[in-house]
Amino acid sequence: MKVDVLTLFPEMFAPVTGSSILGRAGEKGLLYINLINIRDYSSDKHSKADDTPFGGGPGMVMMAQPLFDAIRSLAAPQEAGLDTPAPAGRRPAGRRMIYMSPRGRLLDAALIRELAAEEELCLLCGHYEGVDQRVLDYWQFEEVSIGDYILTGGELAAMVLIDAVARFIPEVLGSSESVEDESVYSGLLECDQYTKPRSYEGLTVPEVLTSGNHKEIALWQYENSLALTQSRRPDLLRAYLEKEPELSKAEKKILQKVVAKPPL
Amino acid sequence: MKVDVLTLFPEMFAPVTGSSILGRAGEKGLLYINLINIRDYSSDKHSKADDTPFGGGPGMVMMAQPLFDAIRSLAAPQEAGLDTPAPAGRRPAGRRMIYMSPRGRLLDAALIRELAAEEELCLLCGHYEGVDQRVLDYWQFEEVSIGDYILTGGELAAMVLIDAVARFIPEVLGSSESVEDESVYSGLLECDQYTKPRSYEGLTVPEVLTSGNHKEIALWQYENSLALTQSRRPDLLRAYLEKEPELSKAEKKILQKVVAKPPL
Repeated sequence: MKVDVLTLFPEMFAPVTGSSILGRAGEKGLLYINLINIRDYSSDKHSKADDTPFGGGPGMVMMAQPLFDAIRSLAAPQEAGLDTPAPAGRRPAGRRMIYMSPRGRLLDAALIRELAAEEELCLLCGHYEGVDQRVLDYWQFEEVSIGDYILTGGELAAMVLIDAVARFIPEVLGSSESVEDESVYSGLLECDQYTKPRSYEGLTVPEVLTSGNHKEIALWQYENSLALTQSRRPDLLRAYLEKEPELSKAEKKILQKVVAKPPL
Repeated sequence: MKVDVLTLFPEMFAPVTGSSILGRAGEKGLLYINLINIRDYSSDKHSKADDTPFGGGPGMVMMAQPLFDAIRSLAAPQEAGLDTPAPAGRRPAGRRMIYMSPRGRLLDAALIRELAAEEELCLLCGHYEGVDQRVLDYWQFEEVSIGDYILTGGELAAMVLIDAVARFIPEVLGSSESVEDESVYSGLLECDQYTKPRSYEGLTVPEVLTSGNHKEIALWQYENSLALTQSRRPDLLRAYLEKEPELSKAEKKILQKVVAKPPL
């Protein structure tokens, strides 16, 4: 997957894209992050990229010209350089154009799976008060929000989206890892985890986990996940029950027991 | 505000904490981010900080010992160094202890306001499959999630939380900016924004915005916000209507018009 990122702060991305799982994905050629500095495309002699909003109000708005030119450059071959005229046209090369914005569709498992199936994405990171609406309309940007809060800029949001989506690209995670097993994507919150030693400062691991009885362990983990989800995210538990999951007899018994209890 | 961040990857934070608004907040002494490398507290000769989970399963779990020692160090004066024994006790110095985790309470405006009122926070960034539950139980961690998706580690989530919370600390934003005006916090999505020039490649700015009639402009912006919120986030519009906002006669008329229309 190639991800084009339009940003005023490309230097913010280096440690994230270079670290851990995303770094390995880059080395294996599974993910290429193309950082585009919007300011490089400003025709202003001071590389200005924003101006005051029409109609008044606080903050600054990112201007159309640098963004139109930066987006057009995506359709031209990389090596052509900035001086070559790029073909006009919306959604260069059929990419999905995504503007990171609190006005957007909330990022969730369904959207992540959709995006992970794309070969190329273009992410636009806003700053200040936002982006001239003509950019969003002309280039048919979808708006995506990572949550109901405001950030200083879209860069962190873009990194969150890239990280969450990259994990769904085949081979990005190691063979021992699986996104489907994970909290949230399975529909339930993940159960409590413990590692060595068995006793630390008098605090011990639940006995069943060291019993070696895999069936009992799986049932304990299922009950723990269910109880956590019921107490913290009843909305997720409702959605899980509506899907009518296939359960063994023992699992069904646990489900009935947990659901019958009033939430904590 | 002081934010202690427990992480295996402190180098990921530098460009975010050093840039733009958060950088200024640091220089003005409004925000101090104290990065603690968990590995520095490992008593293992290879600085090991994780091990396989009890009960089997994929991935690794962060061990209790390095985290217990790192958290205890927070209660000791910074300059005492790692060799000084730190006083025992939970929630060192009364801090709120927050574990960034998809199992947690969703970050939203209410939680952000709560956290912005604290003098000191401690954030724990997990990696791999999670953290030994004894750490979370003993130190009374609250779990906070930035959204219903899984990230490679808690670092991006911690940066998102810090960024969103810092904007609510008095004086962090410039005098011309106000968090209360913003999308989401006002209860409605932000209206479309435009900046110079009036016409760009034949695309023009809505006439009202260049009219100079401030009353008309404010009504246009209100209608635009309402229509966007209705079409994209009917859940937010419902919450907004339930709060029974105080409106002028002209605003009420617009509200009735928008609400009467079927969503796009």
